[in-house]
Amino acid sequence: MQTVNVSARDRAPLPPFTSGEFETRIERARQAMHGARLDALLITTIPAFRYFTGYYPIIAESPARPWFFLLPLEAEPQAIIPAMGAGDMAAASWLTKIDTWSSPNPADEGVSLLVRHIEALPRRFGTIGMELGPETRLGMAAADFASLRAAIGSRAIADAAPLVQGLKTILSPAERARMQMAADIVAEAYAAVPSLYVEGMSEARMHRAFQAEVLKRGADYVRYLAIGSGPSGYDSICRGPVDRTIQPGDVLALDTGSVVDGYFCDYDRNFSIGTPAPEVEWAYATLHHTVDAGIAAACPGVTASSVWRAMAKVLAAAGVEPGSIGRMGHGLGMALTEPPSIHPDDETVLAEGMALAIEPGLFYPAGDGRDRLMVHEENIVLEDGGNRLITRRAPGEIVVI
Amino acid sequence: MQTVNVSARDRAPLPPFTSGEFETRIERARQAMHGARLDALLITTIPAFRYFTGYYPIIAESPARPWFFLLPLEAEPQAIIPAMGAGDMAAASWLTKIDTWSSPNPADEGVSLLVRHIEALPRRFGTIGMELGPETRLGMAAADFASLRAAIGSRAIADAAPLVQGLKTILSPAERARMQMAADIVAEAYAAVPSLYVEGMSEARMHRAFQAEVLKRGADYVRYLAIGSGPSGYDSICRGPVDRTIQPGDVLALDTGSVVDGYFCDYDRNFSIGTPAPEVEWAYATLHHTVDAGIAAACPGVTASSVWRAMAKVLAAAGVEPGSIGRMGHGLGMALTEPPSIHPDDETVLAEGMALAIEPGLFYPAGDGRDRLMVHEENIVLEDGGNRLITRRAPGEIVVI
Repeated sequence: MQTVNVSARDRAPLPPFTSGEFETRIERARQAMHGARLDALLITTIPAFRYFTGYYPIIAESPARPWFFLLPLEAEPQAIIPAMGAGDMAAASWLTKIDTWSSPNPADEGVSLLVRHIEALPRRFGTIGMELGPETRLGMAAADFASLRAAIGSRAIADAAPLVQGLKTILSPAERARMQMAADIVAEAYAAVPSLYVEGMSEARMHRAFQAEVLKRGADYVRYLAIGSGPSGYDSICRGPVDRTIQPGDVLALDTGSVVDGYFCDYDRNFSIGTPAPEVEWAYATLHHTVDAGIAAACPGVTASSVWRAMAKVLAAAGVEPGSIGRMGHGLGMALTEPPSIHPDDETVLAEGMALAIEPGLFYPAGDGRDRLMVHEENIVLEDGGNRLITRRAPGEIVVI
Repeated sequence: MQTVNVSARDRAPLPPFTSGEFETRIERARQAMHGARLDALLITTIPAFRYFTGYYPIIAESPARPWFFLLPLEAEPQAIIPAMGAGDMAAASWLTKIDTWSSPNPADEGVSLLVRHIEALPRRFGTIGMELGPETRLGMAAADFASLRAAIGSRAIADAAPLVQGLKTILSPAERARMQMAADIVAEAYAAVPSLYVEGMSEARMHRAFQAEVLKRGADYVRYLAIGSGPSGYDSICRGPVDRTIQPGDVLALDTGSVVDGYFCDYDRNFSIGTPAPEVEWAYATLHHTVDAGIAAACPGVTASSVWRAMAKVLAAAGVEPGSIGRMGHGLGMALTEPPSIHPDDETVLAEGMALAIEPGLFYPAGDGRDRLMVHEENIVLEDGGNRLITRRAPGEIVVI
């Protein structure tokens, strides 16, 4: 049985973000804020907080304490955070203005402090932007948001979700390098799956073993790992392990969102335990061609929907209906998924610097007459008018374990 | 160098939740809803969704899709979820009513479907409860919440955060068994830390190695791992790794929130790399006594603040100020932290079945004149009028590596 050192390996150093990196982020944000007529952006979501400040408050996994970043159009940026994080944040962030309150304090969880800072802002448009719209979750209690809104009554709060998403989904070279490293580490972990497999192992055991493998090879966190297995195919690729033993004749799929220095890769791989059934080979080959078409279609200037149509065409030619999991891919960055959706209704124009997960799926009938699902996924970044694959392309035939 | 099998180990089977477990949860909820005059509870947070339905939508790591559970006072419970999850949820949950929409759909992310189900509810009090208050985050976009509120205008939405927290922080024996297993697995991983340590290793490498160790020993997820290290002590125990090498003379602390079948343990351990300085031994001994006092004080019927005062007394007798990280412990359950706070202002009366993290910290001056932080943490459940330690009590003297 294969063994490895338990102590994880070191990974190659990443180039640190320069101060210019953050200056550019703030500058781009202010340009967009000017266009949107916002006096300030108030950030409550952790990925955007990290994007602007360079600091990741890991304790935000607990819902006890919110973390705020206030970016005025015409005054100095300001973090407003729980006191316990001030020292760490001062050491890790470029920001010099950090104000704090003793948290948790359910009676006033930073709200009065926020109000004071907002009231002190230069007033030009009378509107504050926050991430309120699709694909965001407010990073403060809803009741506190209502109190905030009431307390700054003379200023409006407008949705700035598309504005923030538009900024942070255009990745700088340094950000792409982090995503590339995440993809490389996961590629090695996928290559190790045959050695992780032990006859008679449960889905749950494989699920844990694979997470450990990704970590030991150098990822900071495994934030997401879906697993599916079943005879001649699986039923779902958005679930955790169920109570079953992985068996000869199974298709096994793993799909991970793993993180290096704040940046996600998100892609899957399929394996056959023993010789695959003909329908498995057919589904695999069909999806491999579909991914090829998706990659070929994705470049700056085209719409997300056009990438969907390029893939749908290949699937239609193979006689199957596309869109089995609601969309055939999505944006990628500091959250597991970012806009846009590769969906027939998403008319977002793709832009240089975006990263995408190309992720078609299809249902196919297995020998027992019941349908199975298969999903293929690769990650690309849009560069130089085209795109660059950051995952190591899945082989043209399913890997047999 | 020590080696282990890469494929993770199997863990002892957990007793499955009986259908009675969920019937009891629903029954208790409805009693509380009746008292609070609520026609229904609308759940959007993932821990509470899992608590009521028994299903964990891992894909909720992505903010693209919300997951709703509607518990009427006088009609059948109903899940309203993205179509992609319907098959999995039907297989995993006791719920029979599952309605779906094709998601992502930014134009209508389940809102009109929610409205339809809410409009169809028997009307008795005219109010719907949602988790809006302290220590919660809305599990849908804030803009969608505003649309929902407007669309069901004739019904009020009231904060039910304390109601839901009051239910899910009283753990059944089956829930406690899961938390116990999480604590046991982490105990083994802490015992392995000396064997994970390699001379010259970075904080980041230890951080990854420890996560992998917890997973291989049987935890489903490591949702939180803080690390601190420094000569004669560390500065913070709520951060991820910084760019430094762990060195002889350091104190190293790890603090993990790791999960078995949905239940968190959350506790830390301190290590000395080589012989500890006298001030380290003093801080360690002082906190060890402080934890003893906290454990001795915690039982059903007393307030959270009284547990704080019991610990503050020991710290005061040692000449140090308590409350270094805002509180000296917290509730524990299906989120990394749950109410109450062990804080002088928290008058929550502790109850049979609650789990608590007892977590005092103190600052102490090191030889260089600068202050260092140390935090000790253990987990208990309140049982039989007293409490039971579910962690393996940290030794009375710091473990030397």
